[in-house]
Amino acid sequence: MTDWERVRDDFPELQQTMNDERLAYLDNAATSLKPTAVVNRLVNFYQQENTNVHRGTYQLSFEATERYERSRELVKEFIHAQDQREIIFTRGTTESLNLVAATYGEQNVRPGDEIVISLAEHHSNLIPWQQLAIKKHATLKYIKLNPDGQIDLDDVQQKITPKTKIVAVTHVGNVLGNLSPVKKLARLAHQHGAIIVVDGAQAVLHLPVDVQALSADFYAFSGHKMLGPTGIGVLYGKQSLLEQMPPYQFGGEMIEDVQLYHSDWDQIPHKFEAGTPNIAGALGLASAIKYLQKIGMKSIQTRDEELMAYLLPKLEAILGVKVYGSENPSQHIGVASFNIGDLHPHDVATALDMEGVAVRAGHHCAEPLVHSLGVNSTVRASLAFYNNQEDCDQLLKAIEETKEFFNGGLR
Amino acid sequence: MTDWERVRDDFPELQQTMNDERLAYLDNAATSLKPTAVVNRLVNFYQQENTNVHRGTYQLSFEATERYERSRELVKEFIHAQDQREIIFTRGTTESLNLVAATYGEQNVRPGDEIVISLAEHHSNLIPWQQLAIKKHATLKYIKLNPDGQIDLDDVQQKITPKTKIVAVTHVGNVLGNLSPVKKLARLAHQHGAIIVVDGAQAVLHLPVDVQALSADFYAFSGHKMLGPTGIGVLYGKQSLLEQMPPYQFGGEMIEDVQLYHSDWDQIPHKFEAGTPNIAGALGLASAIKYLQKIGMKSIQTRDEELMAYLLPKLEAILGVKVYGSENPSQHIGVASFNIGDLHPHDVATALDMEGVAVRAGHHCAEPLVHSLGVNSTVRASLAFYNNQEDCDQLLKAIEETKEFFNGGLR
Repeated sequence: MTDWERVRDDFPELQQTMNDERLAYLDNAATSLKPTAVVNRLVNFYQQENTNVHRGTYQLSFEATERYERSRELVKEFIHAQDQREIIFTRGTTESLNLVAATYGEQNVRPGDEIVISLAEHHSNLIPWQQLAIKKHATLKYIKLNPDGQIDLDDVQQKITPKTKIVAVTHVGNVLGNLSPVKKLARLAHQHGAIIVVDGAQAVLHLPVDVQALSADFYAFSGHKMLGPTGIGVLYGKQSLLEQMPPYQFGGEMIEDVQLYHSDWDQIPHKFEAGTPNIAGALGLASAIKYLQKIGMKSIQTRDEELMAYLLPKLEAILGVKVYGSENPSQHIGVASFNIGDLHPHDVATALDMEGVAVRAGHHCAEPLVHSLGVNSTVRASLAFYNNQEDCDQLLKAIEETKEFFNGGLR
Repeated sequence: MTDWERVRDDFPELQQTMNDERLAYLDNAATSLKPTAVVNRLVNFYQQENTNVHRGTYQLSFEATERYERSRELVKEFIHAQDQREIIFTRGTTESLNLVAATYGEQNVRPGDEIVISLAEHHSNLIPWQQLAIKKHATLKYIKLNPDGQIDLDDVQQKITPKTKIVAVTHVGNVLGNLSPVKKLARLAHQHGAIIVVDGAQAVLHLPVDVQALSADFYAFSGHKMLGPTGIGVLYGKQSLLEQMPPYQFGGEMIEDVQLYHSDWDQIPHKFEAGTPNIAGALGLASAIKYLQKIGMKSIQTRDEELMAYLLPKLEAILGVKVYGSENPSQHIGVASFNIGDLHPHDVATALDMEGVAVRAGHHCAEPLVHSLGVNSTVRASLAFYNNQEDCDQLLKAIEETKEFFNGGLR
């Protein structure tokens, strides 16, 4: 059994105060905190092991290369890929998704083809496809959500057709916390000869991920949202697909041979890693994975569910608070978006800030979804396993105080 | 006066041993070491200040955003840009150059146009232009180097013509350490209505850089080669050019408004920074800049010249050693590439490694240049201001021992 209060000691930022109040960090969907182990890993690399990787011709460089490639192996194990060559290090989810759109998408989408995404997408899994569709004279189609914020499986049957080339969905929604039925979508996509691209940015901190069980063709996520450093992310791609794709960026490390007017590319994964990679970032991500594996993703999943099961009913019970999405806590993975009467979400967030509660307010980089809720923005509280009931209570109390402060703001 | 021996205390890795020998780290052109101040900056961010930037609605996030944008301001000052909106944070030089090729290049290069680069380019400032030329049915032209490795100014007159749209050159060469006459090239490019893109990866650790004095339209460099973290780099671009360019990647942070089938982009620099940026990377880079500014780039430049003036004649004096490029140390900025008789450079590097000397061997991601020297690879020793005469002596002694070890290997 994990001692969850003990776990909090691994995250020094939890000892911070904000506006002289105990910090309740509830903005984990924007970025997670970092355990000391990850920070120490960076320090050790930069102070003792720092060199560039690959092509090295001395001991320190061989060792750095080995550690960098071992990080790839750890990522492979973490998401249950078949082969470590299927793991591409990128700057983050956004770059991973842009990479797929600019290579696979450029190569395979033709005029009249269809790209299907859901209405729950973050801009990073929306605009690349929107712009690709415009450029290729293809059609972009949105899968509707049903009233509790889940992907509407009846609508999926209408939207995915023989014309579909790419289906792109989030694994877990960043506004509602909805879990997409990726396996079902993948089966349908594959039946029609399409591929499925999964945005895992909001999933990797909360769920065990198995890209093979999901039948995902591509799976993208960011290190900084799963205890790792900023500036590092991952694109998983099926080997057969990656091998057929052209490179995304050109430069060192990704070539087999360069002539004056012609170049040949290296094998995967290197073909997609032009230039010096974020070496420390990859090592830090590996350290984050080790930390998560030590606790266990199933254990983390249960912890997150318990916290949400505690928070959500209490949040919904506050007079004037409207929580978006499902009433079922298990369909709010890490995230609860809400508004208080017609108070402006930014005013609410500012008021919560004064009580030490860190939440986000806005469209959460998902304008089409938020507009579909009938609003321009929401307040979003997002949890991680190192949060506790005290954090939830602090939020709830601060909401009550915010209501009192603004007084007439409630209808 | 800087106490250069005292400076070494700021770089803990210099206390490392390699193969039980004192470490002489002479691979600075691949990546620099990191001072404690930079590492401490990362630790502090991750343990006390960690949140995402922009759109934040609480104190910690406002502060992180302010620090991130202040880092941009510091970069602006460091390279003497006119406006901080001209500073785009990227993953590194490679991404910066690919960004220009994929946006400005895509938009402005047409069939029959010419792109002019030098033979001294790193693959990262060669392949993006080569591939753009292929895609656009444009012509790629190489400026020759004269026998001492400098850009041939007579040849420049032939190569830059009214058909030229882009001139792309390295500021300092990564194989020979040659300094390109950027101002002259810029004047000629501008006379013909072309723009000039400068690869500053090897310059920023060794020279004061003034993008306005250079008349550079774009200037690219990496944090990790100038004491900063991995995974962060910069693209400077003239405001008027950046404003006209389309975005490179799509996602959060770079939009003004997103509708279902149409999006509007944010202003520069944000238009070019899709997704969560490498926040810690930017803060670490700012810390590196402060460190460099405290010593002073002019002082560093003199120090580097003194070290090379010490090393180069001694290196050239060793029987059987051929140093490539100029005989003049001042035209070897940070870098000396050489071979020993017909010993294989990798064997030489391995032998030097046994003596604690870290150098690189290979084509240094510059195959066309290295081939033009009549070889497939070289050994490259590269200096930074924290190196000292002892490092040089250790290299020279190790070369002598390598010669003895391989004995008959010399012609």
